[in-house]
Amino acid sequence: MPHLTILYTPDLDRPAAEGGTDIRALCATLADTMRAQRDEAGQPVFPTGGIRVLAYPAAHCAIADGGAAGRAAGGTGDYAFVYLNLRIARGRSAAVHQAVGRALDACIQEHFAALLASRHIGITLQIDEGAEVYNSRTSSLHPLFTQG
Amino acid sequence: MPHLTILYTPDLDRPAAEGGTDIRALCATLADTMRAQRDEAGQPVFPTGGIRVLAYPAAHCAIADGGAAGRAAGGTGDYAFVYLNLRIARGRSAAVHQAVGRALDACIQEHFAALLASRHIGITLQIDEGAEVYNSRTSSLHPLFTQG
Amino acid sequence: MPHLTILYTPDLDRPAAEGGTDIRALCATLADTMRAQRDEAGQPVFPTGGIRVLAYPAAHCAIADGGAAGRAAGGTGDYAFVYLNLRIARGRSAAVHQAVGRALDACIQEHFAALLASRHIGITLQIDEGAEVYNSRTSSLHPLFTQG
Repeated sequence: MPHLTILYTPDLDRPAAEGGTDIRALCATLADTMRAQRDEAGQPVFPTGGIRVLAYPAAHCAIADGGAAGRAAGGTGDYAFVYLNLRIARGRSAAVHQAVGRALDACIQEHFAALLASRHIGITLQIDEGAEVYNSRTSSLHPLFTQG
Repeated sequence: MPHLTILYTPDLDRPAAEGGTDIRALCATLADTMRAQRDEAGQPVFPTGGIRVLAYPAAHCAIADGGAAGRAAGGTGDYAFVYLNLRIARGRSAAVHQAVGRALDACIQEHFAALLASRHIGITLQIDEGAEVYNSRTSSLHPLFTQG
Repeated sequence: MPHLTILYTPDLDRPAAEGGTDIRALCATLADTMRAQRDEAGQPVFPTGGIRVLAYPAAHCAIADGGAAGRAAGGTGDYAFVYLNLRIARGRSAAVHQAVGRALDACIQEHFAALLASRHIGITLQIDEGAEVYNSRTSSLHPLFTQG
């Protein structure tokens, strides 16, 4: 943890000239943003070795009214959407949740500014605290970040 | 929200003659069904601009006993499955949850009637109320549906 | 239920000689392990007909610091990760949760032993109890396992 999973319409994987965007770059920016978060005591909010961002274009999807309102408004009716779900471990403060959410939102708004202006796209970000009943880690990655 | 995510065995993307079905059409029907839901006061249960259905075939999977019982029963042993998870916002009544679930189930049963009769397929629908600690929306899609 | 969903970096789908592994075989082993679990009374923990393992390679991802620490440690900086999330129905004991988790972890550690030794890979397993507000099943698969 933290794990940020991004589900999105596959047309976003097109070139920018065709209404798409660089989702890989978005993943990297969001990971960097999570890594930069600090809590009230100035400590990193998240362990670097636990940060993951994963993006999955849907194979099939349906959105809202299927495009009618978008076409009526002069658009193509090809709605796009992005759902970002960040799962974090329990126990952080509400203030930290809000600060992390706002920091990720700032990335999102910058990354999608051009698309928000040029097509109908809906982006939702949610943060969940995991309520798992079992948790384990098997890793040769975390030790890179936990010396000393 | 609402977000309906469908995870399924990739063989379902084959033509109907080969044991598959039209998952894209299923997405559209489910979205239409969510859009048609009304609560006790006759109001739409869900905001049109928030409806998303996303379907993801698994790259790899394993089901039940791997096929032994299916072959023993005269089938191919190639089990199929579909898991539909609908995440909605908190605060709706139990009666609304049941009504939405039953309406989606009616779609599912109609869509899969032929497959249920011809092969071994398991379909599960669950509705979760989100318990997120942060929620935000950045959208040029929602405004299409929220005029005055 | 139970549903075990595996999200992972797509490089793991390469041949073993290129740092990958057989995710399909992992799915089968994990399903067999779930099928073999017994509770305190010696009864199966999970209904065979409900066992599903689904694996999804990410289309895009970003991990930890993006590779800097891995390269500094003499690796390629191409981190891999696997996130396994098992969703089960409510109502089982904490002892069963722990026993199931440990059994799955044993599979994971055996399956990934070579990769853990040869590259930087992080593997997380979590078990969630579903808190759904609606649940239904439409199945021609379950009856194979529920004869009188």
